[in-house]
Amino acid sequence: MKAINPIKGYKDYVEIIDQRYLPLELKIEKITHYEEMGEAIYHLAVRGAPLIGIAAAYGFYLGIKDYKGGSKDNFLSHSLTVKEYLASRRPTAVNLFWALNQCMEVLKAELKTQGIEAAQQAVYKEAVRIHEDDRNRCNEIGEYGKSLVSDPATIMTYCNAGALATGGIGTALAPIYRSKEEGKQIKVFVNETRPLLQGARLTAYELSQAGIAVTLICDNTAAYTMKKLGVDIIFVGADRITRNGDTANKIGTYSLAIAAKQHSIPFYVAAPLSTFDKDLEEGDDIPIEERDALEIVEGFGKQTAPKDITVFNAAFDITPHSLITGFITEKGIIYPPFKANIEKWI
Amino acid sequence: MKAINPIKGYKDYVEIIDQRYLPLELKIEKITHYEEMGEAIYHLAVRGAPLIGIAAAYGFYLGIKDYKGGSKDNFLSHSLTVKEYLASRRPTAVNLFWALNQCMEVLKAELKTQGIEAAQQAVYKEAVRIHEDDRNRCNEIGEYGKSLVSDPATIMTYCNAGALATGGIGTALAPIYRSKEEGKQIKVFVNETRPLLQGARLTAYELSQAGIAVTLICDNTAAYTMKKLGVDIIFVGADRITRNGDTANKIGTYSLAIAAKQHSIPFYVAAPLSTFDKDLEEGDDIPIEERDALEIVEGFGKQTAPKDITVFNAAFDITPHSLITGFITEKGIIYPPFKANIEKWI
Repeated sequence: MKAINPIKGYKDYVEIIDQRYLPLELKIEKITHYEEMGEAIYHLAVRGAPLIGIAAAYGFYLGIKDYKGGSKDNFLSHSLTVKEYLASRRPTAVNLFWALNQCMEVLKAELKTQGIEAAQQAVYKEAVRIHEDDRNRCNEIGEYGKSLVSDPATIMTYCNAGALATGGIGTALAPIYRSKEEGKQIKVFVNETRPLLQGARLTAYELSQAGIAVTLICDNTAAYTMKKLGVDIIFVGADRITRNGDTANKIGTYSLAIAAKQHSIPFYVAAPLSTFDKDLEEGDDIPIEERDALEIVEGFGKQTAPKDITVFNAAFDITPHSLITGFITEKGIIYPPFKANIEKWI
Repeated sequence: MKAINPIKGYKDYVEIIDQRYLPLELKIEKITHYEEMGEAIYHLAVRGAPLIGIAAAYGFYLGIKDYKGGSKDNFLSHSLTVKEYLASRRPTAVNLFWALNQCMEVLKAELKTQGIEAAQQAVYKEAVRIHEDDRNRCNEIGEYGKSLVSDPATIMTYCNAGALATGGIGTALAPIYRSKEEGKQIKVFVNETRPLLQGARLTAYELSQAGIAVTLICDNTAAYTMKKLGVDIIFVGADRITRNGDTANKIGTYSLAIAAKQHSIPFYVAAPLSTFDKDLEEGDDIPIEERDALEIVEGFGKQTAPKDITVFNAAFDITPHSLITGFITEKGIIYPPFKANIEKWI
């Protein structure tokens, strides 16, 4: 199955799909400077936790590849500046920090025995490796996840945790792509995911491009859809998972998980192990990004609410582990008790 | 407290606020023909269950007021045509049928002893009475409802069940207006209510016009708001309530009620007794309107999803009585056991 590819890294530049224009336009942008990549991350031209990590790794490389003539210490200091700038673009997804740390470790290790140019090339290789690893992880998640999908199956998903959010066939969408490949009769309910409509714009787009039957609903229709039309299983992605299994994901995931519990529908989080944050014990520890009111009040270039009111625009919420059936990772599915089992895996 | 007035009935015409233009423009339209009123109801220029009833009553009057010269039987037959046309404009809100039946009964009763002109005038009086009764009912609902509001209080509401949905200060918003009048420190979370954003466009507008502190959220943020910021009580309206207390209201009400239960937040439905449908035993009996896919796919004048996908656009959902704390009516608050208690009241 050929899923859409949102990022391509080259020696001198990176190509990204500017996802803000989907589904109307497949706009490809050439990025040559790390601050352009930072802007692309900040403004959600690239988004999705795994893809942000890949984009940051390539962006880091763009930021250090042309450094010349200074000492190793100066190069290191410059590299740290680039890293910290990129890390500051989004606060919630742990993959961003994880990918930047990986690149920085490789750079430091190389510098111990080699020159600046070698370190620059090592970072490029590391970015490519992070990208390829993610592709492989998506495939593995798809393999484990597809075992959960009956035939026929009605699946629900949220936001976009698909090819457009990763280096491969996605996390939450990977079991869907794999099930389709096997010829299972599947139908997918896609929540539109306000305010930025990643479900409507991206998930509905990439699944229908792949020939998968999609039914779009407003987020507020999820519970009624479960009750009235029936849903067999729910797959969502994750931006950060703590040691006890509490999960930060796109705002609305928590609401969906509560509705799933009410209807006894299995609720799975699909994410690579890099999404687990060993440093955090529980969901309350995760910083939650709050974004501009205008995303809601003027979401589509048209004012749809009075301008003088307060808006609460949290970009993510926390789904407590008690509402989660299991975590589909590249190494297998983690079931409760989560704290003990996550401990073994990370 | 001066709440906004969405409809004014005169002998020769009706003035409505075309609510599709709010909050950007307060557009007042003069309606002289019953089919114009039918269009206004169909296209949601006037909406909200009680207001639809009032608008239908005035619309019915517009449709029969100029009838001249025929027999009483012909007049009756014409009146039935007008009634059936108006009744067909929206399927879910029971107030529409209730108001039209009231007018028809008055017309028939008058015709038994009087002429056509007298019957026409009687219908006008009946429409005015329905309008005024609704205003009084809203006040009564406000009186009963305000006793549930603490000081300070954080309240959540959904869609628009306010002045813009009724002949008075609303149903769900009536306790809020009354609490504000009494000087209570209140703060209201308003769900935007996709796809047509009645919460963002109408509720946020009318509450902020009345000086009440409003915080707008996307519908998918309700559960997280309850958990993170705290909500003391939830008020919603209703389009139809069956004998056992199952409630049809704007799509998303069910999801909100499930989230309220998860957080042990009292969940009240505010509605006049005319919203109870004696003919229906339970929620599954209520016809649910499904609307055009374009409301979701092109909701803001801009395409936001692929056009070739399926869309499930139910305008209402059913909240089972088990998720409802009580019904605030003009005669008092109905608590469980609902079936027995509703029986006593209707």
